[in-house]
Amino acid sequence: MPEFLKLIPTPQALQILLSHLEVRVSPEKVRTIDALGRVTTEAIRSPIPLPTFPRSTVDGYAVRAPDTFGASESLPAYLRLIGEIHMGSAPGFDINRGETGMIHTGGMLPASSDAVVMLEYTQMIGEDTLEVLRPVAIGENTIKVGEDVQLGEEVIPRGVRIRPAEIGGLAALGIVDVEVAKKPVVGILSSGDEVVSPEENILPGQVRDINSYTLSTLLEHAGAIPKRYGVFPDQYERIYTVAAQALQECDLLVITAGSSASARDLTARVINQLGAPGVLVHGVNIKPGKPTILALCNHKVVVGLPGNPVSALVIASLFVVPVIEAMIGICNAGIRPKFSARLSTNVPSQAGREDWVAGCLVSEPAGYRVDPIFSKSNLIFSLVRANSMIRVPPDATGLAAGDIVEVYFFPGQEW
Amino acid sequence: MPEFLKLIPTPQALQILLSHLEVRVSPEKVRTIDALGRVTTEAIRSPIPLPTFPRSTVDGYAVRAPDTFGASESLPAYLRLIGEIHMGSAPGFDINRGETGMIHTGGMLPASSDAVVMLEYTQMIGEDTLEVLRPVAIGENTIKVGEDVQLGEEVIPRGVRIRPAEIGGLAALGIVDVEVAKKPVVGILSSGDEVVSPEENILPGQVRDINSYTLSTLLEHAGAIPKRYGVFPDQYERIYTVAAQALQECDLLVITAGSSASARDLTARVINQLGAPGVLVHGVNIKPGKPTILALCNHKVVVGLPGNPVSALVIASLFVVPVIEAMIGICNAGIRPKFSARLSTNVPSQAGREDWVAGCLVSEPAGYRVDPIFSKSNLIFSLVRANSMIRVPPDATGLAAGDIVEVYFFPGQEW
Repeated sequence: MPEFLKLIPTPQALQILLSHLEVRVSPEKVRTIDALGRVTTEAIRSPIPLPTFPRSTVDGYAVRAPDTFGASESLPAYLRLIGEIHMGSAPGFDINRGETGMIHTGGMLPASSDAVVMLEYTQMIGEDTLEVLRPVAIGENTIKVGEDVQLGEEVIPRGVRIRPAEIGGLAALGIVDVEVAKKPVVGILSSGDEVVSPEENILPGQVRDINSYTLSTLLEHAGAIPKRYGVFPDQYERIYTVAAQALQECDLLVITAGSSASARDLTARVINQLGAPGVLVHGVNIKPGKPTILALCNHKVVVGLPGNPVSALVIASLFVVPVIEAMIGICNAGIRPKFSARLSTNVPSQAGREDWVAGCLVSEPAGYRVDPIFSKSNLIFSLVRANSMIRVPPDATGLAAGDIVEVYFFPGQEW
Repeated sequence: MPEFLKLIPTPQALQILLSHLEVRVSPEKVRTIDALGRVTTEAIRSPIPLPTFPRSTVDGYAVRAPDTFGASESLPAYLRLIGEIHMGSAPGFDINRGETGMIHTGGMLPASSDAVVMLEYTQMIGEDTLEVLRPVAIGENTIKVGEDVQLGEEVIPRGVRIRPAEIGGLAALGIVDVEVAKKPVVGILSSGDEVVSPEENILPGQVRDINSYTLSTLLEHAGAIPKRYGVFPDQYERIYTVAAQALQECDLLVITAGSSASARDLTARVINQLGAPGVLVHGVNIKPGKPTILALCNHKVVVGLPGNPVSALVIASLFVVPVIEAMIGICNAGIRPKFSARLSTNVPSQAGREDWVAGCLVSEPAGYRVDPIFSKSNLIFSLVRANSMIRVPPDATGLAAGDIVEVYFFPGQEW
């Protein structure tokens, strides 16, 4: 078992890595309709005021508000109906004192009209006389020009992950293309004498490569383009050669080691050879994932993950996903849902280390309950049965059944 | 203002719609690596046991456990080292009484070896004698064949949304293709005399179509393929013709109405003409979104959404997303994160109606706080500023500042 010089706590380890991050991806233009999940690279300002014309928020009659002042059921105001404002076009007339025009929700107010009386508070008398049974204040039942957005106003800041609402806002402004961060390309390389590709048959002693598949999909979901380089035996020259090529071709490189201690040492040696400054952190005070390597080689981040698929997935979500988010310049990384749940079974842990335990989170009438999923050596199907991770803080010597504990969604659980 | 026969509460309205759902999409085969977010259409059973061979979970020495019983630092057990088990291949030898073989984490145990002594509790004496300083129990530091998954065991049930963990599990089993539900095609049709496509310039009185863009991206994210039919004026014949065509071509149809009351009535008339039984629910007891239409025409779901972009997005996430999830057969729709947050400002509401108010959820040291975002007539940029929705339960006459309230992520906020 290799000795680590020093196990760094998780937040500090991430901080060290992010403080060294140099490569940010360049912008590209995409169609707004295709921009879901992409991240803005510049603040977007409105080229128009919104709405562009004064609108009614109800079905009713456009008026000059003072013409209705004092109106009541017993003493209505009487206005002359001079026409209807059709949806989608400018009103063909103006409203003078004592006049009114029929208007629909969303319709454009005529000039000098400053309020709308709702249909239900009016009554037609004959062909062209409207009885108004309640007064309206100036501006009532209308939206002013620029009330949603002013001309030139910043509507979406830089570094925002685009959601359906932003896409709708851009559509409203007629912005049909948008500058977003290019997706960073992440090279994924698996090593291990015992590891073969999932497509291959296995012989005794061999296992299939799980990490290329899980990491690809996790990092793709986070906004990267995964590029899988395949599986290589634990031979320094072969791993170095493909790692050097991958580092050239990608914005970021992830290497998962074989499961033996010597294979993990090999990864560290390869990474140190890939470029200065090399390994920044070797060993994080976390379980699973202690042998994690965080590095910067030739201005690019390289992360060495444990070969254990559970460790690899947990560590990638804690360290690689934030690097991708930093590279695409996300400023509103948002709220990662944290659940307070009642623990159903004791979870042992070693004080002084952050532990993550797979769990099954259940919503009950009285609140959330979480059942820890214990498994030897972090078998992959323990994760298939999990929907969440229970965090055991570094200062705890375990969690007791009945405790209210911190639970997070498992990577990819967000649907 | 049209009168609705009866405003149905949200859960009942959804129940009525789902109980009428007939069309489920058919399965298709995709590559496992491309299956993230897709939904299984059949239970997947393991074609192999996992692991396929007995493995060591540590670096150390494979032994017969009884050979170590009673061993201690003062009275070690002595075993003859007969070789090393190389990663990725079957051991070339067997372990007889008094013998041991070097083994690495993940290595294959030789036959008749039943435990592994960790490296740190051993010491080599000369070339081929191993001192064992602690006893191991039978099975210690090993994983048995099938301990993760048994041959034939159901590993992923039917109706599961595939996450990175499932993809990893399938890779481990060598399952590189998987049957998933086809993505349902959702037709999206906007109407309104005042509405033009976002690509077009607007004239006075016109507004751009926001709903085609927001609904496309929301429903795509939920697992559908959106098919946009564009914007049509509020003319019965034109809307009917394109709606009938869309219903033919799609698995599900969403129509957003123009903003005036008469335009909304038109949608209901068109839907009733599209096929029996037609409109099931016209009017839901919710704000925003009261004029929602839920229908079944010729065995396909048709939803009429209010033209207001805020209403359309809220109602689509409450009614159309669950229909898509039912069509693709999701059985583990999962936990939608609900936050308990302290409300910063009073929110007025009408008793007897479920209200949804846009909010900005903030994580503070003391817990979550939510600031309601008030805006007249639900302007689209109020949603751009929101990250969440505050639910005002039907029995409340508003929420008071300081109350702990129910807050949900805004659609598409899940990153």
